[in-house]
Amino acid sequence: LAEYQTISWEAGRLRMLDQRLLPAETVYQYYTRPEEIAGAIRDMVIRGAPAIGAAAAFGLALAAERSPAQDRDGLITDLEQAARLLRAARPTAVNLSWALDRVMNKVKSVPADEPDQIRVAVLEEAQAIAAEDVAVNRQIGLNGVPLVPDGARIIHHCNTGSLATVDYGTALGVIRAAYENGKNLHVFVDETRPRLQGARLTSWELKRLNIPHSVVVDGSSGYLMSRVGVDLCIVGADRVASNGDTANKIGTYNLALVAYAHGVPFYVACPTSTIDLSIKSGDEIEIEQRPADEVTFLGEVQLTPDGVSASNPAFDITPARYITAIITERGIAYPPYEESLASLL
Amino acid sequence: LAEYQTISWEAGRLRMLDQRLLPAETVYQYYTRPEEIAGAIRDMVIRGAPAIGAAAAFGLALAAERSPAQDRDGLITDLEQAARLLRAARPTAVNLSWALDRVMNKVKSVPADEPDQIRVAVLEEAQAIAAEDVAVNRQIGLNGVPLVPDGARIIHHCNTGSLATVDYGTALGVIRAAYENGKNLHVFVDETRPRLQGARLTSWELKRLNIPHSVVVDGSSGYLMSRVGVDLCIVGADRVASNGDTANKIGTYNLALVAYAHGVPFYVACPTSTIDLSIKSGDEIEIEQRPADEVTFLGEVQLTPDGVSASNPAFDITPARYITAIITERGIAYPPYEESLASLL
Repeated sequence: LAEYQTISWEAGRLRMLDQRLLPAETVYQYYTRPEEIAGAIRDMVIRGAPAIGAAAAFGLALAAERSPAQDRDGLITDLEQAARLLRAARPTAVNLSWALDRVMNKVKSVPADEPDQIRVAVLEEAQAIAAEDVAVNRQIGLNGVPLVPDGARIIHHCNTGSLATVDYGTALGVIRAAYENGKNLHVFVDETRPRLQGARLTSWELKRLNIPHSVVVDGSSGYLMSRVGVDLCIVGADRVASNGDTANKIGTYNLALVAYAHGVPFYVACPTSTIDLSIKSGDEIEIEQRPADEVTFLGEVQLTPDGVSASNPAFDITPARYITAIITERGIAYPPYEESLASLL
Repeated sequence: LAEYQTISWEAGRLRMLDQRLLPAETVYQYYTRPEEIAGAIRDMVIRGAPAIGAAAAFGLALAAERSPAQDRDGLITDLEQAARLLRAARPTAVNLSWALDRVMNKVKSVPADEPDQIRVAVLEEAQAIAAEDVAVNRQIGLNGVPLVPDGARIIHHCNTGSLATVDYGTALGVIRAAYENGKNLHVFVDETRPRLQGARLTSWELKRLNIPHSVVVDGSSGYLMSRVGVDLCIVGADRVASNGDTANKIGTYNLALVAYAHGVPFYVACPTSTIDLSIKSGDEIEIEQRPADEVTFLGEVQLTPDGVSASNPAFDITPARYITAIITERGIAYPPYEESLASLL
């Protein structure tokens, strides 16, 4: 596993690697209050669908610990309030709601009335979510290995590695598992504007793993497929609808369309916790609009002239027809996804 | 015309607006030697296919002025040497070669043997190229107006305005002419990584023209077309082959594929000097590879970890089948382009 830790519980505090500062600085932040966790998710100290799910679960553990409630009902009320706060931090990735619902369901099923027993149960469930995420990612990686040919040239978008999860990674987990299984690879790392998760984070992880790679601008995939050669694309997901439509980082849909035009396989890798069977299609997924200054500034450097406006949708929806397969810890789903996803779950 | 001047001849010196420093600073640089012009083109002090054509022509005027040759042959030898130097500055845009060839053909057709008469002819031809570029762009703009519906939401890639030409612009000239003809518009300005010509230059021009716009990341076109609505895309060109295949700034091909998938018209606007009938298809166009640090650094700010490599192709080729029409000063070419382009020329 990684020498760095995206998220870890340390004696009543949640420690998270501040991903806003990477790769220049490796700084860990400590949190003791659920509203601080919500803020850290919103500000992208931590990001990546599985990672923010785990962070939200630990946010409830902090809420439980800090709640002065003396009885079960009072504690549940406090936890529900914290869950609302955490759920609102970012709207698109379903893992956030999934983790909160899982912890709250656990709370409600605890047989004891003793608040301290509930507090223990909340922390244990958050720790279980975190531990399972690592195991799930390893299995996603193994399941994906047969889809990666030896010598594969791969385009990867955003960051889906240890930094986007509790550890190991989803799409990057597949790349990593293929490499660890002896396959030669070259990864074209989409820099992933505007937050540059590819340039800053994915290259940082791939370098530590010694996996050959080069950073490219997001607009270069058509060039790479037509002039250089690309064998597959692989991305993560923030929410997958029943029909396979997939919300992921802005630019994913463009990459899928370019891959489709070139007959290049386009894979999504995600835990089944990212699959939202409560919605029929991607039309029902809310796309988060983030601040314009993520586009117009880079750190302190202003890119655009004064007063120029920008639009900053953080995600897009890739329709299922452009997705070759969805790789999960329970196996690989192929079209038609209504059937294959339902049978995996 | 613009209150700023991309390129102008001032009493034996060539003055160019340093586009590397925009929008933060408006600095004019002065040049007196052809090798300085080649360097300025290579370093992108000036960029845009029509603008670098004009710069190269003035580079020959500087070479003529500085040449100590006392006879016609000596002067032509010196000019040919300067032309080789200028031609090598950037390989993809054909306007560079086109302008150099035009000046050299003029030189060879001057009836006089007197070197000073040739010197005058070189400067006059460079000035004619510059003056014609402005007139040509205005006509491209007018020709394109009927293709822009009232209320159009337009995606534009890179910069194709006064800064990419001697004045007025090609694709941005069409947008500008449509706006000046009373059409309501909104321009989604692709920021255009890695050099950010959209974020830095196009927004700077649109703001001065009061044309409504918002800057977006290059990966957002799929989102914009599927969730917001886009009526057309329009881009410039660095070289158009006989069959209509078009070399333009990296990311153009991706945008064309996204437009095609959504049934959104995709237009190329360029002078006929950008059309290269000597090549059959885009396969014959050399794609310039630029330094990796254009991707890994933004000014002084390092984006990637130390030692990470990047690939930086500066252009891509959009196959003709994805191009709805090519707008030139001589009219609009529609597919099949082999016929329509040949008949325009």
